[in-house]
Amino acid sequence: MTESAQSLDLSDTLAPMREEFLLPEDVVYLDGNSLGPLTRASKTAIDRVVSKQWGDDLISSWNRHGWIDLPERVGEKIAPLIGAAPGQVLCVDSISINLFKLLSAALALRPGRSTILLTENDFPTDGYVAEGLASLIGGDRCRLRRVSPASLTDALDEDVAVLMLTQVNYRTGELYSMEALTRAAHEAGALVLWDLAHSAGALPISLDACAADLAVGCGYKYLNGGPGSPAFVYVNQNHQAAIRQPLSGWLGHRSPFDFSPSYEPAAGVLQFQAGTPPIISLASLDAALDMFAAVDLESLREKSLALTSYFMERLSSVESLRDLRVLTPQDAGSRGSQVSVAHPQAWGISQALIEAGIIVDFRAPNIVRFGFAPLYNSFSDAQAALKELASIFESGRHEDSKFQQRPKVT
Amino acid sequence: MTESAQSLDLSDTLAPMREEFLLPEDVVYLDGNSLGPLTRASKTAIDRVVSKQWGDDLISSWNRHGWIDLPERVGEKIAPLIGAAPGQVLCVDSISINLFKLLSAALALRPGRSTILLTENDFPTDGYVAEGLASLIGGDRCRLRRVSPASLTDALDEDVAVLMLTQVNYRTGELYSMEALTRAAHEAGALVLWDLAHSAGALPISLDACAADLAVGCGYKYLNGGPGSPAFVYVNQNHQAAIRQPLSGWLGHRSPFDFSPSYEPAAGVLQFQAGTPPIISLASLDAALDMFAAVDLESLREKSLALTSYFMERLSSVESLRDLRVLTPQDAGSRGSQVSVAHPQAWGISQALIEAGIIVDFRAPNIVRFGFAPLYNSFSDAQAALKELASIFESGRHEDSKFQQRPKVT
Repeated sequence: MTESAQSLDLSDTLAPMREEFLLPEDVVYLDGNSLGPLTRASKTAIDRVVSKQWGDDLISSWNRHGWIDLPERVGEKIAPLIGAAPGQVLCVDSISINLFKLLSAALALRPGRSTILLTENDFPTDGYVAEGLASLIGGDRCRLRRVSPASLTDALDEDVAVLMLTQVNYRTGELYSMEALTRAAHEAGALVLWDLAHSAGALPISLDACAADLAVGCGYKYLNGGPGSPAFVYVNQNHQAAIRQPLSGWLGHRSPFDFSPSYEPAAGVLQFQAGTPPIISLASLDAALDMFAAVDLESLREKSLALTSYFMERLSSVESLRDLRVLTPQDAGSRGSQVSVAHPQAWGISQALIEAGIIVDFRAPNIVRFGFAPLYNSFSDAQAALKELASIFESGRHEDSKFQQRPKVT
Repeated sequence: MTESAQSLDLSDTLAPMREEFLLPEDVVYLDGNSLGPLTRASKTAIDRVVSKQWGDDLISSWNRHGWIDLPERVGEKIAPLIGAAPGQVLCVDSISINLFKLLSAALALRPGRSTILLTENDFPTDGYVAEGLASLIGGDRCRLRRVSPASLTDALDEDVAVLMLTQVNYRTGELYSMEALTRAAHEAGALVLWDLAHSAGALPISLDACAADLAVGCGYKYLNGGPGSPAFVYVNQNHQAAIRQPLSGWLGHRSPFDFSPSYEPAAGVLQFQAGTPPIISLASLDAALDMFAAVDLESLREKSLALTSYFMERLSSVESLRDLRVLTPQDAGSRGSQVSVAHPQAWGISQALIEAGIIVDFRAPNIVRFGFAPLYNSFSDAQAALKELASIFESGRHEDSKFQQRPKVT
């Protein structure tokens, strides 16, 4: 508690990883949970893919530079980060599109059951996609049931086909127990679909060990793939023989270049491809993932918790910040890699921080999120954020009228 | 007919456009119908978006550099190329994913009808996606009927909800009449969904004037957006009040950053967004489209037809090439911007051409495609391809045993 940020940074074994990131000098970036920063590796890879591959080798790059297998290769790089043995992860489309594929498939794997169980405060797209599926196939075949996180286990009745849950809640930063909830779902005869958007790349995940069924995750948050880089999908090998997803585009075909008239799905997780993938965005993610090969995930988790603990402990000890209500669990085992605080003037606070170079984000209606990415954030970053918060509350800058208008993206 | 390629090139008013493309010196690129080449504009834009926007401005780029509106802005750049007034085109996802959205929506717009009518030789993904939709919602609500192109009009019975057709066939290069087929479909009470993959950017298209209902198209062929760049979707304004698509991700929400629990679609075509778009790939397409502002589409079409006519006329006049059967219509009004020839040794021919620097492609089982992109191909390119074809048949190089094995991508 009393150790200084500088001293903690000096003994941080992950500190050298920051050199892999092209972060601007004048900002403290605490928003990697929204968009991870540019890496040296991505910049180099994008230059190469654009100039040498697309530019010089043109169409032949699909074979010569292995573009055709890139979704699979990137999936295999993500696999060890989420505790998946090979052959179960594919990098493809967006989380929204992948949820549609997996929810459709999950309902088919549990005939006679029609409920998708989710929490009422989960990331909206997860519910929106389930609503879209219900509107398409009918409420008798697809029913949404939203309950509080604490009621999930009790809500697992015999109609639940699939429990869908973001492992780390985007608002609160709460980390749910993959092991306990997967076991509870299985005991009730349901499948589990984990959304790893706020956990992949930030903490160790054990999909296989928990016997999780299905998962999706994001390429552009803690994996640093770049804005809107493709998402990923995980299908446990136990389901691969039976699973079938309905967005059957040509690249999910067993032999796409036979151009045969009828669809036959590729084996395993490869059938989750649909159309042609955005190669440049995908190559950026591919390159950004390489740094994880040198990272021990237990050390990553240890640093993540040390950063959030440092921030939370000091936040609560500053008298002028007592109106900031911490939403993130104090219990380290229930905490992701962000700290969320609630305040009626959260919007003004977030904007005053950003103006001072402390990049955080706001989530309606009243949350400021401080994302700590253990690969590049330091204890000095956390200290700078705390110092600026105190300065804001002393000056009242967050109440400035210029912070009344919210732009399109918050 | 007797004018030389060099003379035709000298009087080609579009010839200066070739300077916008970073084509390698040593190739004749006749595969822009698969992957358009890198442009100077895309290269510059990608550098800027990666280093300055993502790298320096990080998450703030969503507002500061208008990433959030990029799908809409790119859609509006495509609109004039396809004969669409503003507010009807969005750049998003892949053709496969967009077909699923539009086919689902089309069936809902024609209650009581269940048939999706398509041709038996259309690009496979169009049929595959319809199969996937049928498997999800049931054969009673979604029936595929595949007929020959010549039988389309006769097949328009009272169960047809939507006729789905690629305007230029990917195998033969045949151009179908948007006006006549749209009228026939409407007279039968059906909607039309046009796939513009092989026409957008190669010839003028008149979606609004034909009162076409729905369309999709490709960003990486004649629009030169880069490998796997996002596709686009068109929804005629007459349908926008009633249409609803089922892949309801958060960016298709009316107010995504309110993070409200229930889905409310954005107005108009904007509801066709789903997840977060791949910004780098999208920015590349955005930049490549700018050159079209300087291009008159009638001149583009004139040059395209002059190129394919030049190629076809001379091909048929060379005795040694008489075994190459031309599949592309002689009638200019029924011709897209490619010439397809059939031959039992099409694979070997295509590979011998590529080895000699004439980049074409092969489509199973027996087609060689010569794509002519009027923005950068010259009559000298066509002449070089003819010369090489003749040389191949004289030498028999296409029968070489090294051309027995087909790679993953053809």
